[in-house]
Amino acid sequence: MESNQISDTTQVSVKMVLDVWHMQNSRMDKLLSTLTDDQLAAQAAPGRNTGIYLLGHLTAVSDRLLETMAWGDRMYPNLDQPFLFSPDKKDAERPSAAELRECWSRVNETINKHIAAMSTEDWFKRHMSVSEEDFKKEPHRNRLNLLLSRAIHISNHQGQMLYLGALHNEN
Amino acid sequence: MESNQISDTTQVSVKMVLDVWHMQNSRMDKLLSTLTDDQLAAQAAPGRNTGIYLLGHLTAVSDRLLETMAWGDRMYPNLDQPFLFSPDKKDAERPSAAELRECWSRVNETINKHIAAMSTEDWFKRHMSVSEEDFKKEPHRNRLNLLLSRAIHISNHQGQMLYLGALHNEN
Repeated sequence: MESNQISDTTQVSVKMVLDVWHMQNSRMDKLLSTLTDDQLAAQAAPGRNTGIYLLGHLTAVSDRLLETMAWGDRMYPNLDQPFLFSPDKKDAERPSAAELRECWSRVNETINKHIAAMSTEDWFKRHMSVSEEDFKKEPHRNRLNLLLSRAIHISNHQGQMLYLGALHNEN
Repeated sequence: MESNQISDTTQVSVKMVLDVWHMQNSRMDKLLSTLTDDQLAAQAAPGRNTGIYLLGHLTAVSDRLLETMAWGDRMYPNLDQPFLFSPDKKDAERPSAAELRECWSRVNETINKHIAAMSTEDWFKRHMSVSEEDFKKEPHRNRLNLLLSRAIHISNHQGQMLYLGALHNEN
């Protein structure tokens, strides 16, 4: 009985984190569906990153999950240079808003297929950014934790991207 | 052996969520320590909420955790009217930035004392916003999940409050 009880709490924990991941991505999808390409090209606030930069940044970070989770090859390594290794620049060579929307959707589709194929136990295995030796000492540095930290990262920038939308009176 | 294995993953899951909670609050504390009261009084972006409103909003939401977690009485129910039930208004009657910083710190101190006293099992009990009947069907609506969703909420607004700080060349 005790074993079942404890197993239940582990399964519940995995569900909680997966729910958080799907929720944050779904909020971004919903926001993106309301933003025009012109709105994405604007700065979220004066002097701050543009929506395109933030979307490219989030897409690159999610794309890197494929390798760090040992799920397979990355889809868009070309996003690293403009969106991870460089600050936002007006004349940067980078994909258009339309292309980035497509990359964002495809990366998430791919990630979600891999998520659906993971067992509860798989989530508690190490990811590729932590060595076997370190993982023995720090078992919380597992794949579930990586997904959780990425979901929180999305939430952080989604708050900023909300400012790209139209102003409402209640703001 | 299996029982230990499963118990380990549950304990690891609780640690992961608590780490997330402490990390988001620590980021907010760090940001607040760099912002002047004048910066907090400004809008995060043109026409958007002020830093004072966002800080009051986050403090009220964290304060409400005390009751929803069944940890005790709320400390600052007076924050609900100006920061949860009303939009941001320039002439609203509400605590000053200095007072809100104090409320934010005290609420978090109190929450963290309660967190330190929780057992692993406690985190998987229902919180007060879900009925016993619903909880039987949806055991993920537990206290750990509530803390997690609040941490993500902080991350969302912390991204916006970053815009209150000085502009740097690297954005």
